[in-house]
Amino acid sequence: MAFRMQFLSDNAASVHPRVWAAMQAADAADSPYDTDRLSAELDDRFAEVFQREVAVLWVATGTAANCLALSALVPPHGGVVCHREAHIEMDECGAPGFYLAGAKLLLADGDHAKLDPAGIARVLDAIRPDVHQVQPFAISLTQASEYGCCYAPGELARIDMLAGPRGLKLHMDGARFANAVVNIGRPAAEVAGPVDVLSFGFVKNGAMNAEAIVFFDPSLADMVRYRRKRAGHLQSKGRFLAAQILAMLDGDTWLHNAAAANAAAHAIASGAGERLLHPVEANEVFLACTVEERAALRSQGFGFYDWGPDAARFVASWDTRAEHAELLGQAIAGL
Amino acid sequence: MAFRMQFLSDNAASVHPRVWAAMQAADAADSPYDTDRLSAELDDRFAEVFQREVAVLWVATGTAANCLALSALVPPHGGVVCHREAHIEMDECGAPGFYLAGAKLLLADGDHAKLDPAGIARVLDAIRPDVHQVQPFAISLTQASEYGCCYAPGELARIDMLAGPRGLKLHMDGARFANAVVNIGRPAAEVAGPVDVLSFGFVKNGAMNAEAIVFFDPSLADMVRYRRKRAGHLQSKGRFLAAQILAMLDGDTWLHNAAAANAAAHAIASGAGERLLHPVEANEVFLACTVEERAALRSQGFGFYDWGPDAARFVASWDTRAEHAELLGQAIAGL
Amino acid sequence: MAFRMQFLSDNAASVHPRVWAAMQAADAADSPYDTDRLSAELDDRFAEVFQREVAVLWVATGTAANCLALSALVPPHGGVVCHREAHIEMDECGAPGFYLAGAKLLLADGDHAKLDPAGIARVLDAIRPDVHQVQPFAISLTQASEYGCCYAPGELARIDMLAGPRGLKLHMDGARFANAVVNIGRPAAEVAGPVDVLSFGFVKNGAMNAEAIVFFDPSLADMVRYRRKRAGHLQSKGRFLAAQILAMLDGDTWLHNAAAANAAAHAIASGAGERLLHPVEANEVFLACTVEERAALRSQGFGFYDWGPDAARFVASWDTRAEHAELLGQAIAGL
Amino acid sequence: MAFRMQFLSDNAASVHPRVWAAMQAADAADSPYDTDRLSAELDDRFAEVFQREVAVLWVATGTAANCLALSALVPPHGGVVCHREAHIEMDECGAPGFYLAGAKLLLADGDHAKLDPAGIARVLDAIRPDVHQVQPFAISLTQASEYGCCYAPGELARIDMLAGPRGLKLHMDGARFANAVVNIGRPAAEVAGPVDVLSFGFVKNGAMNAEAIVFFDPSLADMVRYRRKRAGHLQSKGRFLAAQILAMLDGDTWLHNAAAANAAAHAIASGAGERLLHPVEANEVFLACTVEERAALRSQGFGFYDWGPDAARFVASWDTRAEHAELLGQAIAGL
Repeated sequence: MAFRMQFLSDNAASVHPRVWAAMQAADAADSPYDTDRLSAELDDRFAEVFQREVAVLWVATGTAANCLALSALVPPHGGVVCHREAHIEMDECGAPGFYLAGAKLLLADGDHAKLDPAGIARVLDAIRPDVHQVQPFAISLTQASEYGCCYAPGELARIDMLAGPRGLKLHMDGARFANAVVNIGRPAAEVAGPVDVLSFGFVKNGAMNAEAIVFFDPSLADMVRYRRKRAGHLQSKGRFLAAQILAMLDGDTWLHNAAAANAAAHAIASGAGERLLHPVEANEVFLACTVEERAALRSQGFGFYDWGPDAARFVASWDTRAEHAELLGQAIAGL
Repeated sequence: MAFRMQFLSDNAASVHPRVWAAMQAADAADSPYDTDRLSAELDDRFAEVFQREVAVLWVATGTAANCLALSALVPPHGGVVCHREAHIEMDECGAPGFYLAGAKLLLADGDHAKLDPAGIARVLDAIRPDVHQVQPFAISLTQASEYGCCYAPGELARIDMLAGPRGLKLHMDGARFANAVVNIGRPAAEVAGPVDVLSFGFVKNGAMNAEAIVFFDPSLADMVRYRRKRAGHLQSKGRFLAAQILAMLDGDTWLHNAAAANAAAHAIASGAGERLLHPVEANEVFLACTVEERAALRSQGFGFYDWGPDAARFVASWDTRAEHAELLGQAIAGL
Repeated sequence: MAFRMQFLSDNAASVHPRVWAAMQAADAADSPYDTDRLSAELDDRFAEVFQREVAVLWVATGTAANCLALSALVPPHGGVVCHREAHIEMDECGAPGFYLAGAKLLLADGDHAKLDPAGIARVLDAIRPDVHQVQPFAISLTQASEYGCCYAPGELARIDMLAGPRGLKLHMDGARFANAVVNIGRPAAEVAGPVDVLSFGFVKNGAMNAEAIVFFDPSLADMVRYRRKRAGHLQSKGRFLAAQILAMLDGDTWLHNAAAANAAAHAIASGAGERLLHPVEANEVFLACTVEERAALRSQGFGFYDWGPDAARFVASWDTRAEHAELLGQAIAGL
Repeated sequence: MAFRMQFLSDNAASVHPRVWAAMQAADAADSPYDTDRLSAELDDRFAEVFQREVAVLWVATGTAANCLALSALVPPHGGVVCHREAHIEMDECGAPGFYLAGAKLLLADGDHAKLDPAGIARVLDAIRPDVHQVQPFAISLTQASEYGCCYAPGELARIDMLAGPRGLKLHMDGARFANAVVNIGRPAAEVAGPVDVLSFGFVKNGAMNAEAIVFFDPSLADMVRYRRKRAGHLQSKGRFLAAQILAMLDGDTWLHNAAAANAAAHAIASGAGERLLHPVEANEVFLACTVEERAALRSQGFGFYDWGPDAARFVASWDTRAEHAELLGQAIAGL
């Protein structure tokens, strides 16, 4: 059944016209494999975004971005602390185990799918520092989280205060990093905070199939260049991925798109009241919702996922039509 | 230095207009992640190509196609016989070791980078059938080979006669499968011969970033669906990859493009005479060529790779201009 | 501080005289690498124990036994259901991730560190049958469990009724299998129940460094022969491992030793009353115990591990002196 | 067929009486898992042998020693240069691929199964320094080599001069290190030369199942402690492995045993003349030998391996009886 108004996921949203234009412009380029001019621009362009030196690699998917990023931080015998509901744990079919050669995810709890120092400490403190247990090497945060919630700069700083003394590196899964930047309203550097490597997502925000891995320690990128190739993620026509990313950065398209998606989410949630299960801090809305209520919404033409037996998830995209979001908001208010 | 007439590689060739059109048409589609309508068409479309039931998965690169294909045939403790100069051995940065969890490539010799029964048998016969040595599980052939040479159907049959009784599966790296089909002039099914899984390349032949893994035993595809996701190769907007492949199949674009590239290679080689190091059976030309001769060609505006100290490689693409190929052919004849 | 009476672990217990004698007898043997006469006897000897055909491989440690066993049941992209406190999850430093090439442990709850159908079903039912989540291929049980508790034959049958229809294989970590057999008082075949592969432990029960992997489907053993070698676990003087195991089977030494250890555990627990945290069904006793009480016991010469802030673990071995166990039982009763 | 006088392999030789005595003495020890007193002595004892600070870990097999050693030097995306006939390439069933998560062996040629700078350079110089090819991280040497030949200190120094500037680490497979030390007649430190990690073999030289991994950079040992556990190679009764090694070091047993084996090899080779295929610099003798000649020797009661169609391998052990070696030498001379 096709719904007239889709809020299933931002995953499958359409591609932004600027991205299309940039890809077509890239076609003409004289571009040898892996040394094309567009890919070479990425470091400088992201250095502007983050106001510091970075090294940047493109890959086609968020799973590859996350796992290649982590492969620079965690040895095969190590562990990564992440939230129990993190994408790397729940939705990547064991990709971290594959990319990290059997390294282990160490699962922490925390509200709204966000890690907090207490939850992290509980995991870390339970690990005996002996060879019988996997020792942690990194913490992976998701900004915005699986429930569309953001880490404020102060929250990131407190996690860093825990991680630093223990020698733990920080990774950020930023599949919806743009939505977090818009929501927090601070420069990207503050929204990334103290992380060592960021998976900077574009696919959910208007790109076709390009994500950026941003290394704040540029020396880490070199090994990942090899690991990217080894994982079959080095595309010979990589100029098309670079073009997508550059187009998203041009004119702050990434921020405009995320702002539109966030605004749509707020419109959806506007009349949700007590139903709201998590604060709306990005482009996702989670609501308590009975089976009958969900059927009622669907009968009005709204497509969305059930989220367990008593809830529903609504995701807005950069291309969600504002009037659809408003209609959905009204329908929810009227349940 | 940019050359006016490029023969460096087919890797970075432009994208065919039909492919662009199909991708843009795909943008409008209502396409949930991994269950889009275009991807669902692949099995049937390739069944027509091969005149038998197949299961087909897209991935973005040839390395991923090869390694995911092999992961369905070879366990971690197994080995794969391949040519000493095969792409999986020489140019994938150890990707088979990664995807196959440490399985081993068993290197055979053969003229023109092609395996032959004698070369394969030498490798197999040297393996003691005890637990101290890695045992073979599959043979990987490249059609056309790294030197642009093709396996005739009879050659494939003879290799199969060796493989079958030993229980070895067959994989074909078909990064230039289209060029082989055109060269051999037989149906695709005969050019693939008895292989179990085929990496069917499109990127070198007019696509942007889509290759097909064709499973002639459809049951093998199911595990690879998981391994593809686990490797970060399941794209959420996979409809764009499916669209590329379908466009290449439409109206036999894949064959027309390959025919153009092969013709250009023949034009290049037309006056090469004794210089020719390998028969031209696809879109690549390898020539004996001194340093001075190579400089002379470059000074005339031709770009190409050195191939060791005394040779050069020229690769034609689907979009190579016929007059450039002819000019190059004349320049070579005039050396 | 060395304690006069040790109840720390059965891990480091002494080697049984019969085992010593058998090892020394093995020294004389004319024994080529991996085809020695003693190793060749294992299949038949275990066939007697289990009253059915089996294939048996020795390895030096329980971790290797568990992980090699699982490697025959679970592909790299698969998952293994086990208890949250299972040894493979808690005490093997990520060995399953290493041996299974990144496969995932799927953690279930259950009283006394035992799995039960409800706990397993909760894990299985939460897994979406799509490529984004790791799918289960096996269940691993520990007999006796980490808390020294046993699965009755009926409990195993009920788990099998859950596993069979879902195509899941069963592995049993039998590091303390002998203790379970003695406790349950049924033939070994019933205590192993419907499992496909059993890690049959001897090290904690009087051997030096030999465990047996028992394949109830003998065809599974062949791949593990290669994987054992590949993991560096094929010892060239494997006759000494086979000798240990055969000595333990001779005259039911394994049962006599386990009976002694179990009896000592019962003596320890005899006056524990309400302190007892888990039923004593093998050779381990877990007691609620304050810091002061533990200090009091230690001051009387008893060595043991704290088990969290409010509990203590006491483990009896085959060589625990009965009077030490009785003294400890009295000391506990007198707390 | 059992032969009266065995020269098949040193792998399955008997255990030295001192080793037996030490193991039995260890049984009494109060020895918690992995922190036993004997294991703790290893660092100091090997520091005496090598006259410098080292960290030492025991494992049960040479394959585990080699692969764990290499795992400290080579990342999953890296390569190891070794001889085409090295044990890690030929006889470990792909263990390096398993332990190094898919890293690649880069095969070099050299006389007598020894690497030399020219052969190494040929391999290194052929590797393009781009992401498409596996880059080298280490060189692995075998001392004495698979053909029983030794690297003189000067040869090691020349290899180090090649390795150092390229940032390559050095590993030595010393399965027959004792034989090399005896042959070269220089202190162990010179025979190990500039290597970073040494697999110091004892099993072929009188131990039962204990080898030492000697880290000349002690900081490397820490990660290997975890990897050893993760590989199932941490034995709970590790005191028995430590005891074996300490017994072999006591009173220079390792040197006396190796001297006996080397002397026996020289006796075997004494009348071999032109038949000798490799210089006898350890305890192995390789001879050109027809089928008929081999049959003749076997009919006289000598057991040994064919080495291809036209050669035979004879291996002496620490416990080879001198008169047997002399008889064999005479029989060979009389062929």
